Amino acid sequence: MRRAQRAADRIVKGSEPMSTPPDARKTTPSSAAALVRPLIAALAGYVPGEQPSDPTIVKLNTNENPYPPSARVRAALDDACDRLQLYPDPTARPLRERAAALYGVDADGVLVGNGSDELLALLMRAAVGPGDAVAYPTPTYSLYETLVALQGGISVTPPFDAEWQLPQSLFEARCRVLIVCNPNSPSGTALPASSLEPLVSARRDCIVVIDEAYADFADADALSLIGRYPHVVVLRTLSKSYSLAGLRVGLALTTPDLVAELTKVKDSYNVGRLAQAAALAALEDQAAMHDHVARVRATRARAEGELARLGFVVPPSQANFVLARRPGESLAVLAAGLKGRGILVRYFEALPDALRISIGTDEQIDRLLLVLRDLLAR
Amino acid sequence: MRRAQRAADRIVKGSEPMSTPPDARKTTPSSAAALVRPLIAALAGYVPGEQPSDPTIVKLNTNENPYPPSARVRAALDDACDRLQLYPDPTARPLRERAAALYGVDADGVLVGNGSDELLALLMRAAVGPGDAVAYPTPTYSLYETLVALQGGISVTPPFDAEWQLPQSLFEARCRVLIVCNPNSPSGTALPASSLEPLVSARRDCIVVIDEAYADFADADALSLIGRYPHVVVLRTLSKSYSLAGLRVGLALTTPDLVAELTKVKDSYNVGRLAQAAALAALEDQAAMHDHVARVRATRARAEGELARLGFVVPPSQANFVLARRPGESLAVLAAGLKGRGILVRYFEALPDALRISIGTDEQIDRLLLVLRDLLAR
Repeated sequence: MRRAQRAADRIVKGSEPMSTPPDARKTTPSSAAALVRPLIAALAGYVPGEQPSDPTIVKLNTNENPYPPSARVRAALDDACDRLQLYPDPTARPLRERAAALYGVDADGVLVGNGSDELLALLMRAAVGPGDAVAYPTPTYSLYETLVALQGGISVTPPFDAEWQLPQSLFEARCRVLIVCNPNSPSGTALPASSLEPLVSARRDCIVVIDEAYADFADADALSLIGRYPHVVVLRTLSKSYSLAGLRVGLALTTPDLVAELTKVKDSYNVGRLAQAAALAALEDQAAMHDHVARVRATRARAEGELARLGFVVPPSQANFVLARRPGESLAVLAAGLKGRGILVRYFEALPDALRISIGTDEQIDRLLLVLRDLLAR
Repeated sequence: MRRAQRAADRIVKGSEPMSTPPDARKTTPSSAAALVRPLIAALAGYVPGEQPSDPTIVKLNTNENPYPPSARVRAALDDACDRLQLYPDPTARPLRERAAALYGVDADGVLVGNGSDELLALLMRAAVGPGDAVAYPTPTYSLYETLVALQGGISVTPPFDAEWQLPQSLFEARCRVLIVCNPNSPSGTALPASSLEPLVSARRDCIVVIDEAYADFADADALSLIGRYPHVVVLRTLSKSYSLAGLRVGLALTTPDLVAELTKVKDSYNVGRLAQAAALAALEDQAAMHDHVARVRATRARAEGELARLGFVVPPSQANFVLARRPGESLAVLAAGLKGRGILVRYFEALPDALRISIGTDEQIDRLLLVLRDLLAR
């Protein structure tokens, strides 16, 4: 999934492009490199994650929801097909109003993005200039690093502690934007509200982004901070809990004033008619979302127990995936073995003793456990 | 439409944000302004164009196609609805291959965007840094100015000559990107190939973007320049001739090397499953597109003649709109009068003696002419 694949595949060469070493440019020998900015030419190319079209593959690598979206989505799409020759509503007003009612915020404080990836990019473009710092605890969603580098910014990346709690240095980092992915990827762990609010309260000098892509799978969220702290932006996505990864709809929840600033940076027609209609229908069917989330959480609890029995260390997950570790071992061969048996999970070169496993259906997880037992017994 | 509405509504305060006067900041007095970059805070907010939901309005303001997309689009959308919970193909491979075959370019030299607006933004982000210049003849699509300002760049904007031909100074402008909108908006006029190639040949030091959003309505295009000149990027959109404004699909046609650079700047899942499927189906039905274009061109010829008979000066249009001028008169009242009678056309404050009128159906244009005759006789 988005977090998934980029975390492993997108390799950013240096987060301080202003001081790129001369030989970094050699990675792009074409004349095209001379036509773009040096900081772009110095970035290594992005290799997209595996999105196989073979439906028999057990796909547990990109944190998609194994269940389809609400049945209301299909009906809404049928209706919306009638006027495709006309531009969409640039303000996505009905969708924003529905989201505002759902999350208890002002409709003018909701911004709709072409996936929450676009909203992250908008935030960076609005707030980060050359040399500006962006801080976030790591390991986390590696797109942050790429987006900061694209702005010529500097990533400040203190590591989570051993219990996946916030590093103290985050409270003092000088930065324009501070990002906390909560629940975090790839760990699946969540910070308690009691540790998030002190950080928000201490850092009123920058935009604090709480990336809640996985919050619907968690016990708690940070919605109560919106508005009380005007520098807080909570990001949500329809890709996970609402089963709409294929449509690209994300939501930024913050103050109307900050939405007004971010809107200046956004393409006016960034979300098409079908995506707006489907997202609205999906938000209107909370029962379908909660049903799918409950099933994923039940399967997650079972997977955590079974993986622990197989000798993996699994931090408690609040997301729709788990991080299964064998501290000190490299799991590259195990990941390849799973792939050879038709099961895709996520292996990160930067975290070689871990596999990130999306929670699929019970049948998919059973299949995974069966093959894992077999491969580990060899 | 996109060109339309932004041209009038998006007011950029100064294209040199590095030297923004101190009082420009007063337009955004909220604390949100302190959280974003000064150059963003100094921009005036964007007011989206009119996209009324009332279907009885004769909507000739945003250059949409009055005819629906190919019937194959609906069938393709039905098929694509089955796997919405999965991420789309990040490379949009089938669509790129179809576009490559259609336009006679390398599939790796095609980049698919969330509308051609996104492709313009990607080009700016890839090639333009603070203080870098971007040149384009004006008046033209005002989004260019906004995108340059967002990068902290400087717009160099020599005016078209009285015959809407290229200004000589464009051949010497120092810049990182040079853009020619051809056919141009809001004029509708097109440059002959004989004037475009000398410019391209003379300016190998920068990316030359030929924005061909309206080229399917024209007699000629610049596709033959792609590849022969590795610094040329031709932009196409599915929004106009293919009647898919509601879905947001644009195409950049250039070299594989430059696509590789631009891909570094793009969100990996920038175009969703439904948009990819619909665009592929639309490109596969060339007959439907050509039929709609032929109808628009026939209506355009009739509209040009009738508007001239009503005393308007109408430069010869190669697009799906015409610019109707009454030199020296302000047409603000006329535009308001049309709106009062349920007809939306485009009025630009920067071009007060002109109305830009999208070519609708024959019935819509007849209605427009009837009301215009009435209003002008008063």
